Amino acid sequence: MASTSSLHLSQALLARAVYLHGSSSDRVSLSFPSFSGLKSHSPCKAAATSSRRRGACASTSVVRAAAVETLDQTTEVSLVEKSVNTIRFLAIDAVEKANSGHPGLPMGCAPMGHILYDEVMRYNPKNPTWFNRDRFILSAGHGCMLQYALLHLAGYDSVLEEDLKEFRQWGSRTPGHPENFETVGIEVTTGPLGQGIANAVGLALAEKHLAARFNKPDNEIVDHYTYVILGDGCQMEGISNEACSLAGHWGLGKLIALYDDNHISIDGDTEIAFTENVDQRFEALGWHVIWVKNGNTGYDEIRAAIKEAKAVKDKPTMIKVTTTIGFGSPNKANSYSVHGSALGTKEVDATRKNLGWPYEPFHVPEDVKKHWSRHTPEGAKLEAEWNAKFAEYEKKYSEEAAELKAIITGELPAGWEKALPTYTPESPADATRNLSQQNLNALVKVLPGLLGGSADLASSNMTLLKSYGDFQKNTPEERNVRFGVREHGMGAICNGIALHSPGFIPYCATFFVFTDYMRAAIRISALCEAGVIYVMTHDSIGLGEDGPTHQPIEHLASFRAMPNTLMLRPADGNETAGSYKVAVVNRKRPSILALSRQKLTQLPGTSIEGVEKGGYIISDNSSGNKPDVILIGTGSELEIAAAAAEDLRKEGKAVRVVSFVSWELFDEQSDEYKESVLPASVTVRVSIEAGSTFGWQKIVGSQGKAIGIDRFGASAPAGKIYKEFGITKEAVIAAAKELS
Amino acid sequence: MASTSSLHLSQALLARAVYLHGSSSDRVSLSFPSFSGLKSHSPCKAAATSSRRRGACASTSVVRAAAVETLDQTTEVSLVEKSVNTIRFLAIDAVEKANSGHPGLPMGCAPMGHILYDEVMRYNPKNPTWFNRDRFILSAGHGCMLQYALLHLAGYDSVLEEDLKEFRQWGSRTPGHPENFETVGIEVTTGPLGQGIANAVGLALAEKHLAARFNKPDNEIVDHYTYVILGDGCQMEGISNEACSLAGHWGLGKLIALYDDNHISIDGDTEIAFTENVDQRFEALGWHVIWVKNGNTGYDEIRAAIKEAKAVKDKPTMIKVTTTIGFGSPNKANSYSVHGSALGTKEVDATRKNLGWPYEPFHVPEDVKKHWSRHTPEGAKLEAEWNAKFAEYEKKYSEEAAELKAIITGELPAGWEKALPTYTPESPADATRNLSQQNLNALVKVLPGLLGGSADLASSNMTLLKSYGDFQKNTPEERNVRFGVREHGMGAICNGIALHSPGFIPYCATFFVFTDYMRAAIRISALCEAGVIYVMTHDSIGLGEDGPTHQPIEHLASFRAMPNTLMLRPADGNETAGSYKVAVVNRKRPSILALSRQKLTQLPGTSIEGVEKGGYIISDNSSGNKPDVILIGTGSELEIAAAAAEDLRKEGKAVRVVSFVSWELFDEQSDEYKESVLPASVTVRVSIEAGSTFGWQKIVGSQGKAIGIDRFGASAPAGKIYKEFGITKEAVIAAAKELS
Repeated sequence: MASTSSLHLSQALLARAVYLHGSSSDRVSLSFPSFSGLKSHSPCKAAATSSRRRGACASTSVVRAAAVETLDQTTEVSLVEKSVNTIRFLAIDAVEKANSGHPGLPMGCAPMGHILYDEVMRYNPKNPTWFNRDRFILSAGHGCMLQYALLHLAGYDSVLEEDLKEFRQWGSRTPGHPENFETVGIEVTTGPLGQGIANAVGLALAEKHLAARFNKPDNEIVDHYTYVILGDGCQMEGISNEACSLAGHWGLGKLIALYDDNHISIDGDTEIAFTENVDQRFEALGWHVIWVKNGNTGYDEIRAAIKEAKAVKDKPTMIKVTTTIGFGSPNKANSYSVHGSALGTKEVDATRKNLGWPYEPFHVPEDVKKHWSRHTPEGAKLEAEWNAKFAEYEKKYSEEAAELKAIITGELPAGWEKALPTYTPESPADATRNLSQQNLNALVKVLPGLLGGSADLASSNMTLLKSYGDFQKNTPEERNVRFGVREHGMGAICNGIALHSPGFIPYCATFFVFTDYMRAAIRISALCEAGVIYVMTHDSIGLGEDGPTHQPIEHLASFRAMPNTLMLRPADGNETAGSYKVAVVNRKRPSILALSRQKLTQLPGTSIEGVEKGGYIISDNSSGNKPDVILIGTGSELEIAAAAAEDLRKEGKAVRVVSFVSWELFDEQSDEYKESVLPASVTVRVSIEAGSTFGWQKIVGSQGKAIGIDRFGASAPAGKIYKEFGITKEAVIAAAKELS
Repeated sequence: MASTSSLHLSQALLARAVYLHGSSSDRVSLSFPSFSGLKSHSPCKAAATSSRRRGACASTSVVRAAAVETLDQTTEVSLVEKSVNTIRFLAIDAVEKANSGHPGLPMGCAPMGHILYDEVMRYNPKNPTWFNRDRFILSAGHGCMLQYALLHLAGYDSVLEEDLKEFRQWGSRTPGHPENFETVGIEVTTGPLGQGIANAVGLALAEKHLAARFNKPDNEIVDHYTYVILGDGCQMEGISNEACSLAGHWGLGKLIALYDDNHISIDGDTEIAFTENVDQRFEALGWHVIWVKNGNTGYDEIRAAIKEAKAVKDKPTMIKVTTTIGFGSPNKANSYSVHGSALGTKEVDATRKNLGWPYEPFHVPEDVKKHWSRHTPEGAKLEAEWNAKFAEYEKKYSEEAAELKAIITGELPAGWEKALPTYTPESPADATRNLSQQNLNALVKVLPGLLGGSADLASSNMTLLKSYGDFQKNTPEERNVRFGVREHGMGAICNGIALHSPGFIPYCATFFVFTDYMRAAIRISALCEAGVIYVMTHDSIGLGEDGPTHQPIEHLASFRAMPNTLMLRPADGNETAGSYKVAVVNRKRPSILALSRQKLTQLPGTSIEGVEKGGYIISDNSSGNKPDVILIGTGSELEIAAAAAEDLRKEGKAVRVVSFVSWELFDEQSDEYKESVLPASVTVRVSIEAGSTFGWQKIVGSQGKAIGIDRFGASAPAGKIYKEFGITKEAVIAAAKELS
């Protein structure tokens, strides 16, 4: 396993950090002697109303004294405190300037933030995407000024002083929540609570998988940790329980979550809605749990906890770090008022006095700057060492190196698309969920980063990779992931996998209707540009007897309306292959494949190339781009449109049949192409789709007719429901005639 | 508290049930002596591959022997077993006839099902909606044949033999998952996993609230339990952790959940994805936990557990009942193959042999029938007793009785709508979230069943009822519910409250974008006809700096496409009041109110009556229903449309401004009315809405223009984003001119 050497390396780094701390000068703290300790006007005063806070505060001085005694490094501690206060005031000042934002978390979490970025984590600020970096996720994304301050101190070019001053402004690189597509150095987009911790599970899964697949006894080329800071809000969300249950099950030993236990959420003390025993819950989930009682100033406690967490290799660790939200603010600390609003000039001044901070807004003291400056050369060195290691690896294990490289760079192997299966009208009728499985099993042979699974429906979604076993605690090199009945966690974990390395192509599956359970994660895929493939089967009333709770109606429309999302509904084998081609190529947006439970005919005229255009003609007996009628179908209803066309043609009509597999892709075509498929002059248009007609007016026009379902489904055999709901060839023919 | 006397009552019932069992004849089991015990061909055979199963099976005979020894009621046990096997075979036979369904759960859960419906629960089969009935929720809804069989035996007219034979067929009363709107006696719609247990939390909350509000020391008029059966799938879903965390926090002592711990889900043994310690997690959530090791035949164990659960009054109880899925099937028990498919003729025969069941399909043995027949008179008696109690209550506490009656019947107090606030154009500009709070606080004075709260955003969503305190463990009579950051659980809990009694009007709140977290629960509101009010604030890019993760774009469209859902986006005070009027009146569909964070002008022409029509004219300077231009807006953009109209009118145009507050309500108006608002002849139509344009083509027509946002939002002050995204008066004017 990789963990042994990684621990040595990180311990060495820790030791070096301590050494550097000891040797650094401390000019400013000397000229402000009161700085190294809390002033008598302690922020704990504000906490006195909460009995639980009182305990934490009471222990503060004791713990600090003990730390000082042990390490005998008073200068050192004062520089750490100065750095921590720099972080606090960068956050305070930026929120103040924007008059918008969340100062409370950065003020409370600055100590753990400092220790992570300054003492623990391995990264290269000048190449933030260096593959083997430790990953950090701020799951409590509203506290993003913490991370911006840390990136700034650590030397990331993406967050310069002017960026901090532009916090939450139009076009800035410091938006109101962490956005990986806006700020280099941010791993994933967080903010909606609970997503980040689930993303982190995905990142840690990715590391464990790659390490097991590629590491050699003499060369552990994959070896990093994933750190998370999450808050009370993340803990309350169901998604975090789902993801953390899986993390425990998988034994993700290199996942270390720091829980900012500050007992305050927007509505006030968490006592009003959150009195569960979080430690015990995490133990039940199979985590190692540590409690840092003084997260405000107990630096050694935090260090010791992280060290302990790293030593536990078979379990993820949750470090509960009890902190005071808005630490340092004499009148607002430990209250909801510091959570999500600027402190206000008066309280900013009071906080400056209270923490002994004489500087102008946005000032980073020279010794703090100097102290942090070492991360640039150190990061370069870390990467150079790793590059040398990789060169060794490549020499000795060329095949594996090539595969790993493909995952690191995201470059698709030349000719990969030749693996896609092809079909003819003579190929046997089949459900698109089965055809999907043929594609997955063909693609996994050529795409080293393809892996995934289902939320306990593998045998219904048809997602098993037959040549692989299960990704499990002791078989992490395998590629079938078993998510259990945890759709939301599954989606967010896949986002984490996708954003770990560009060559990962995670897929996940459930019934299409249960996208409702994971919609927030799918939206994050779209927003943060994670090319996750959502394999969504049982995509209509065609699933039959399970009834309306299981039958999607509005889901196609709801995803067509979602930005940066590809909603694909293939009709047969060729279209399923085309959908996979599109999904694999589109690494910066998610693809949702709506697939049938029921068998579908292989249709003449369907093609991979057609799918790539989103909408295309599969058959036509008209000439001069002037059909009498255009029939439009998607997925399982395309064969109904085709059958209706045959009948109408027998009656002498010039009928065009258009497959509308992806609205988004069609929208992206040229006006000429669009006109060639849907000429403006032809108003007799009938669409058929076993789902909501919402939105179809755009395609069929004011004079066309959309056949669909604008009510909930029913429990009965599929054929019966189709008939009763009028999703039939006869209905298409009748509509075409009525409009003609 | 109500619990003391209720325990006495239920204990008395239990005693009576046992007495009746002892006195009932047992003809059939006498003629089939082998019936009373498991045949040598034990279903445990199939379980031998799983070590955990082995333990459970090994203890079976011991526990049964002990039970027999203690009670010395061999005849009794044999009748119980016969009843249990009746339940099993009704399920087996119905699934077999439909060739579709889930026999595994009913076969494994028949013992607990029997004990609940035959020995424990208080209900009146001839009046299934009797207010004070115990509620039962099958959270693992796929096992619905269990409940249909129980309702059938218990004498509910909704599930006759012919209904069982029509399982999963078109138009039947026995659909593929439990649907409260199809089958009288089903409390809520379940099937999507985890929803049911969360609904049950809502039902138990409702009981605790009403009991605290209405019970008197001499008359505990509200007093029932809520029972749930949930499975491994429900346990894995995040929503169940959210809801159960709240149940523990609230100390819902009369909520008793039986966890069907069968270790099998669709993908096989739960070991592959679910190895957490569920007992420990529930203890952490503040539940009392009991383990019934032998749920297959340990009747006394199950009885004792329920008795113990009832004795624990300050905590909900989870009884983990270890069972064998498909118990009795010699070749399929304890495997995923029995989860969701018919057994097949051969295995049905083998199971009949194994369990000693000589009867034809769907047969209920006479002694079983006779035994269960007592529930009809007993249920009538229970209700009569309660009616007498209520008459007493009414005499002594007339005011409370009237209020409780309103909640029980759902009748709205006469003239309630007069409480709705009204506004004039001179009223101060305000955010619709604030106006919403004025409505809530006005309505709570006249609507006894109104209660609700927010997912930790009460002070942002503006949902606090100022004249009430918090619903908490020790103050359950209050009406502000604190859900914590648990949107999904919140929605499902509100569904439970709504379906407890017709007069409950639960509301719940979060930011509009986070409907993504609770969409599955909202869909269930729509499907199961629960008139929950969703108070969704921060409804567009108008929230500003929080950025794209917090800015809804596609959400309006996504709900407009959802059947039986009212999506309302009011523009000012009158429209907010109108939206509340609609929401309160519509008790059989949910209303989603999209409300602004930012201040909005009170507009001339808006009205409650207008809102009730969905779309209506707020100003017009044309004549003869022939405006040059129709400008259409919703919510915060209606004032932009109104301002654009003023400018255009100054230039001599005849301009109509239409508020399109609810598409669904407009769709329900007559063709004449629609033509009077949107005359077909007027094709110059411009819509403006700060959301996806998806779907707007239906309103503006092929020649109109929809101004909206078809990309993700941005982090910046709201005004800046509106400008950059072109959601402006200038854009409306330009579009109108371009089209004219």
